[in-house]
Amino acid sequence: MANADIPNTRADCEALDRLDPLAGQRAAFLPPDGVIYLDGHSLGPATHAALKRIEHTAQKEWANGLIRSWNDAGWIDLPRTVGAKLARLIGAQPGEVIVTDSVSVNLFKLAAAALPHATRLAIIVEDSEFPTDQYIAEGLASSGVADFIRAGEDQGANTLAQLGGGVLIKSVVNYRTARVSDIKALEEQATANGGLIVWDLSHATGVIDLDLNASGAKLATGCTYKFLNGGPGAPAFIYAHASLASQLQSPITGWFGHADPFAFTSAYTPREGVSRFATGTPGVLSLSALDAALDAFAGVDTAMLARKARQLGDLVTARVTQLGLETISPSDGAMRGGHVSVRHPDGYAIVQALIARGIISDFRAPDAMRFGVSPLYLRFTDVWDAMDQLQDVLATRAFDHPDFHRRSTVT
Amino acid sequence: MANADIPNTRADCEALDRLDPLAGQRAAFLPPDGVIYLDGHSLGPATHAALKRIEHTAQKEWANGLIRSWNDAGWIDLPRTVGAKLARLIGAQPGEVIVTDSVSVNLFKLAAAALPHATRLAIIVEDSEFPTDQYIAEGLASSGVADFIRAGEDQGANTLAQLGGGVLIKSVVNYRTARVSDIKALEEQATANGGLIVWDLSHATGVIDLDLNASGAKLATGCTYKFLNGGPGAPAFIYAHASLASQLQSPITGWFGHADPFAFTSAYTPREGVSRFATGTPGVLSLSALDAALDAFAGVDTAMLARKARQLGDLVTARVTQLGLETISPSDGAMRGGHVSVRHPDGYAIVQALIARGIISDFRAPDAMRFGVSPLYLRFTDVWDAMDQLQDVLATRAFDHPDFHRRSTVT
Repeated sequence: MANADIPNTRADCEALDRLDPLAGQRAAFLPPDGVIYLDGHSLGPATHAALKRIEHTAQKEWANGLIRSWNDAGWIDLPRTVGAKLARLIGAQPGEVIVTDSVSVNLFKLAAAALPHATRLAIIVEDSEFPTDQYIAEGLASSGVADFIRAGEDQGANTLAQLGGGVLIKSVVNYRTARVSDIKALEEQATANGGLIVWDLSHATGVIDLDLNASGAKLATGCTYKFLNGGPGAPAFIYAHASLASQLQSPITGWFGHADPFAFTSAYTPREGVSRFATGTPGVLSLSALDAALDAFAGVDTAMLARKARQLGDLVTARVTQLGLETISPSDGAMRGGHVSVRHPDGYAIVQALIARGIISDFRAPDAMRFGVSPLYLRFTDVWDAMDQLQDVLATRAFDHPDFHRRSTVT
Repeated sequence: MANADIPNTRADCEALDRLDPLAGQRAAFLPPDGVIYLDGHSLGPATHAALKRIEHTAQKEWANGLIRSWNDAGWIDLPRTVGAKLARLIGAQPGEVIVTDSVSVNLFKLAAAALPHATRLAIIVEDSEFPTDQYIAEGLASSGVADFIRAGEDQGANTLAQLGGGVLIKSVVNYRTARVSDIKALEEQATANGGLIVWDLSHATGVIDLDLNASGAKLATGCTYKFLNGGPGAPAFIYAHASLASQLQSPITGWFGHADPFAFTSAYTPREGVSRFATGTPGVLSLSALDAALDAFAGVDTAMLARKARQLGDLVTARVTQLGLETISPSDGAMRGGHVSVRHPDGYAIVQALIARGIISDFRAPDAMRFGVSPLYLRFTDVWDAMDQLQDVLATRAFDHPDFHRRSTVT
């Protein structure tokens, strides 16, 4: 294998698969027959453990245990116990993470709670940011609590410095380009300028080597249905650094964020720490599924995950470059998250043509095909074979078929 | 049967069960062996259909269908299709209801959105209201957007009238007393005073005869895991009257409330109607379970549901009154929701002693035992037998056992 360990043949891929220290994790998953799944950055696949747990929670805990399961099955503690399990994957202390609500709702809570701690009442978001991050930032600001400032790509922290403070909402891995932000450097810059950053870890958790504590990150949220494989619409998480969490006031003071929800008092006393960001009754079914799904990461070093994702991403990058396609994602694997984004004016139709062949990836407007390289269940040969199919779809112009140009609701 | 159709013997109950037009619905449910479930006002039991659907969604739609199920299995439409199904039970048009988030988050969104449409920037809540309603109201006001006013029990609308406007958060059925509010009268009073009411239907939906449209209700939310049997922590719903919905601005402008979320534009354009109150990616597992659970209501007239709940509640009221206990809930069935609240200084221990005998009810601080009378699956004989057990627990002071005085996290 020439060119910095990037495999050049299918045999090279087979050799890498044989040596892969994560090869054993694949058995935890149920990839459907005839599918190569390059969409783990959008919706992770099911694990055997998650499916078993869903059945157990539904049949035993709900149907048989009924209301008693809030205590007996530990439902009441799930936001914290699942959060504690997830903490290791992002480099946080177990008590710094809870699972609650969606990323959208959590961005709202965190940004609103951060504002009084920034030296300027401004909310900054980049125009290349995932749409919900932009919408939430603008919506929150429009209530009159802060100025709203849209910055250019990767200009958020500079804008914050120019303003002399504010709250920046920023993804660690950009959804379209897969570019990785330097958390430590941006945190240092923000702190020096009296600003706070709310990190969106949605495309980062479970695929890059995060160490929020060491990087000085103070506030973050992220979804759990992508590389964490928590299931469709699984609840999101919130991280708040232990030194800051209990100084923050969530704008949405629901009863599950109360210090003693079952005292049924009129006065609101927030729970200590990050748990004050809990709101309503937690979704037990989804939380249980996520709890079990996280077991696929047991004993897995996050550095090892990141390394394999980089290798798989390098392989996609090399193959698409050979096909004459332009990647939006960084070619340097250390700067790239868990997917490779490739531009093509017919990107939507090409993705549909690939799906028809069992190669599942996705498309983001206007022209990005995203190939996810989840390290827990993908083999180097899977990626190789998928790229063979891409090559064939392009060579034969299979994507010209009108069926592949009909837009679905969800892309 | 003397005394306005209240059964006086177990034989009377058997006769009522034989004549019960809802008797057939019980087969949809899985009541565990040896359990009489009087806690449907807290967590509804599982239906066969919901358990089957959870399995289907997990095994087929997620594990096999993967990302394709957003389109192919209709996941993307679930918030609206399940909302439309639920609409009939509350007297709303199908397009006036979506399923999203929790009651806490929805109260926040609705109250914030209602404020600019009230003639006074004030949020009013009664001190007898469910705690999360009080917490959300006070938390929202504390951000500076409105004055916060706590009113006495059932004084919310009068306070609104005295203030000359504002937003009142108000339960249709009080969680502790089960007292039913007169939606129509309070809406007329609020409208005359330039105020808006955000109704909390959590303890009302599926057990009283709601007709929001006819009653002039404009905004409401409610949970789906109580009398709707949607499953533990199932998502809540939002109702916004068609004439008002598109004039409202949700404070939490997540991408699922966008007119075209998959266009990935930077500018936020809210969806028409109540769907603008959607926020993040919906929890598909729970939504699917709820969708199937609602089938237990197919063909069931809500007036019939309400009538049986009244009859069952009358029976509980008559039996506890004979035992010398004081009810907090109205003795007039037309004024009472789907549970009967009974005071006792040892209420907590009595409920535990009953649970040990398979009679499941619950307790609300400081002294209320709540006996839920869900009309879809409870028989008159169930309620009769449960009251026999209550009589025995009191007569033998079985609740004196120290085990029954140990407090659990969740009561």
